[in-house]
Amino acid sequence: MRNSEILFASIPQVAACYRSGSLSPVEVTRACLARIEELDPALNAFISVTAELALAQAVQAETELRSGTDRGPLHGIPVALKDLTDTAGVRTTCGSRLLADHVPGQDAVVTVRLREAGAVLLGKTNLLEFAYGSVHPDYGQTNNPWDVTRTSGGSSGGSAAAVAAGLCFAAFGTDTGGSIRIPAAYCGVTGLKPTYGLVPLDGVFPLSWSLDHGGPIARSSGDAALMLAALTGGPHDAAPRDLQGVRLGVLAEHARGPDMQQGVVEVFDQACDALRRAGAVLVEVHIPQLDRMDTAMMHVLLPEASAVHAAWLQQSPGAYAPDTRMHLEQGFAVSGVEHVRAQQYRRKLALDFLAALTDVDAILSPTVAWVAPHEDPVVSDNEGSTEARRTAPANLTGFPALSLNAGFSEGLPVGLQITTRPGADALALSLGMSLEALLDGNRIPPLGGTPTTERRTP
Amino acid sequence: MRNSEILFASIPQVAACYRSGSLSPVEVTRACLARIEELDPALNAFISVTAELALAQAVQAETELRSGTDRGPLHGIPVALKDLTDTAGVRTTCGSRLLADHVPGQDAVVTVRLREAGAVLLGKTNLLEFAYGSVHPDYGQTNNPWDVTRTSGGSSGGSAAAVAAGLCFAAFGTDTGGSIRIPAAYCGVTGLKPTYGLVPLDGVFPLSWSLDHGGPIARSSGDAALMLAALTGGPHDAAPRDLQGVRLGVLAEHARGPDMQQGVVEVFDQACDALRRAGAVLVEVHIPQLDRMDTAMMHVLLPEASAVHAAWLQQSPGAYAPDTRMHLEQGFAVSGVEHVRAQQYRRKLALDFLAALTDVDAILSPTVAWVAPHEDPVVSDNEGSTEARRTAPANLTGFPALSLNAGFSEGLPVGLQITTRPGADALALSLGMSLEALLDGNRIPPLGGTPTTERRTP
Repeated sequence: MRNSEILFASIPQVAACYRSGSLSPVEVTRACLARIEELDPALNAFISVTAELALAQAVQAETELRSGTDRGPLHGIPVALKDLTDTAGVRTTCGSRLLADHVPGQDAVVTVRLREAGAVLLGKTNLLEFAYGSVHPDYGQTNNPWDVTRTSGGSSGGSAAAVAAGLCFAAFGTDTGGSIRIPAAYCGVTGLKPTYGLVPLDGVFPLSWSLDHGGPIARSSGDAALMLAALTGGPHDAAPRDLQGVRLGVLAEHARGPDMQQGVVEVFDQACDALRRAGAVLVEVHIPQLDRMDTAMMHVLLPEASAVHAAWLQQSPGAYAPDTRMHLEQGFAVSGVEHVRAQQYRRKLALDFLAALTDVDAILSPTVAWVAPHEDPVVSDNEGSTEARRTAPANLTGFPALSLNAGFSEGLPVGLQITTRPGADALALSLGMSLEALLDGNRIPPLGGTPTTERRTP
Repeated sequence: MRNSEILFASIPQVAACYRSGSLSPVEVTRACLARIEELDPALNAFISVTAELALAQAVQAETELRSGTDRGPLHGIPVALKDLTDTAGVRTTCGSRLLADHVPGQDAVVTVRLREAGAVLLGKTNLLEFAYGSVHPDYGQTNNPWDVTRTSGGSSGGSAAAVAAGLCFAAFGTDTGGSIRIPAAYCGVTGLKPTYGLVPLDGVFPLSWSLDHGGPIARSSGDAALMLAALTGGPHDAAPRDLQGVRLGVLAEHARGPDMQQGVVEVFDQACDALRRAGAVLVEVHIPQLDRMDTAMMHVLLPEASAVHAAWLQQSPGAYAPDTRMHLEQGFAVSGVEHVRAQQYRRKLALDFLAALTDVDAILSPTVAWVAPHEDPVVSDNEGSTEARRTAPANLTGFPALSLNAGFSEGLPVGLQITTRPGADALALSLGMSLEALLDGNRIPPLGGTPTTERRTP
């Protein structure tokens, strides 16, 4: 394989080459580090690249694999961690000036698990400050591999861009209102926000404790499933699912809307058509009172975030980016009664989604109403809509939601979201695998490669 | 049996007499109604007595039992419901002027379940207004069967007094900060706040949705277990437990304290001695940061309650009792951040209790620091303590907590509380049964009977 083929191969393909001896972890890790050196100045996906540690881990993986110690599919695979994930001895900034020199003494649980799975940790990826308000100028925006004048999205933008541009094979991200799925959609990759609580967040800096989820970003649902298995320490039980007779609900309130770009509507409709041709039964589903969602999100997220930052905000208000600080200050103005009402709405929303999911296997919607904009907003206003309108419901409910690339609009990726019942993470991934096989989503971004080259190898 | 013996017999004793034909449901229901007529003017335990309906149910139970249709141990047993529990066609006031004429169209789930168990519903018991602030003057205080110049406690005071005075055999109550256990302690009966969510609250007026629990009040843990089985629709799996080798933790922070009356200390210590003599191993346990509990309670309960009442408070502020209104207004001043911090403390508290409960089977403490006072406070201040200090932790954690009568101080009952792991409701009841057999708790109150007569029949 040529280098570009290697770097865009699937994790099982690389894993097979490791076992056959046609590729080695050190070789692949070197290729990733070289590509980071080449492309990251334009992307700004990494805050810290730990080249020496990564090579040492690659050497260890190589030695282990040669001596017959096989840690499974991620063994020797280069991955990256969103820079709010604790790594013992490696600085973890949370994209904030406040933690610019912070070096944790311990690994987060997910870091430990990825190490145990034999993954090679390349470094720490860029994010919105504390996964919240906006990019801090100290770290700058992560640019989109499909158009570097655009954002990769927030808050796990560094992770999504790194995966999309072939700087690593998969990455860990977090998602409080869409922060895995929005950048996955903007960058044309696959991101899963798993069921609430499935991936432990010990050692991951909190944004909003009841909304925070950790999960994988990868170039396919298959790779995301392998990453999820490592993050949970559980079995990997996703497999492509025959779409014949599968019942899929199209969420009427989110499939259309004045906020949607025409290109997004077209890609979404084409994906639905492809599903129908593959034998899936598509029905329209409705969720009542989705218009209360934005307010509920604000009344849960804001005070939860402000509770975490209260002391720092008093001591060092000037250290925050202006938008982060503004959101944190707004959080103190939310009343307990507003918060309680939002929690009540939240319970109702979960019951409504559950009711809809008794009739269908999964619910489909676009991930975001538009393609990647030029700058990172948490709340991008477009005809009164917000960026997180279609993603945040799954944070309120805790249900699994997967975003995959459904196609392109004027050269920019368009995400499609699959929501399933709580605990049915494997189903979301399985449907994702089948859908990805149907759709024209798998391309290599133009950055340092040939645009529109088919990524998939035989 | 004489009437007073019948009315203070255990539920299994009465049930056995029904099956042997020595007593009939109609006879027992008539005896209860007569006793209500005789004593309730002094107690004020009932807001509504549904004599005709009760007799019709008793007739039905009698017919069914004679024809061989046996609904189990509660069949034909007279019970009462706290008057915030919906009863189709029977007014349900919540102790408030706002609902003075409110007649629900449907039964609450617990009402349905008690009917299905064949229980005879005698009527609806008095409570603090909306189970919250204070007694509404329209309904007045429920007086204590042990001293009618004192309160029976709140908020399920009517249920506890009715059970203690032999007006019924068991009652349904609710508990948001101690509202089953505090009146149970003041009235010398047994009350269980079950694991959060075990008893469904559909059709029960909410006070604070994340703290509300429904459960049984009865004259013994054995009777409470039968009532719980009916309320949950589940099996009845509590049985007296051999105390030999049982490990019990005495909660140091609650077993002593400047708020405690000397008589309560003595009764609690005597109960601990009796347990040791019976072979139990008592160890001291500690829960950190219990001093944060009162504030956390306030920051959860107040806004949750105010969210429910917002519209009524605006429309009819004068309809509430002054204290209820004050609490409801205070709820709007709690900030979202305060509420969130309280929720975080709450999670920590649950983990701390769980940690303590890995080393011991159950945790013991006094239920309240004092015996029944003269008036109903929600927050009775005595040397800086609150009435709910020892009960509310189990509302925050959701763990089961049982209060039983451990003895008397100057003629007034003293409660002892048993807390177990979530889901271990049967263990709390089993330990309660064994403890009750050891202690001098089972007396008939002086009201209309002979004081200190042993209730237990051979």
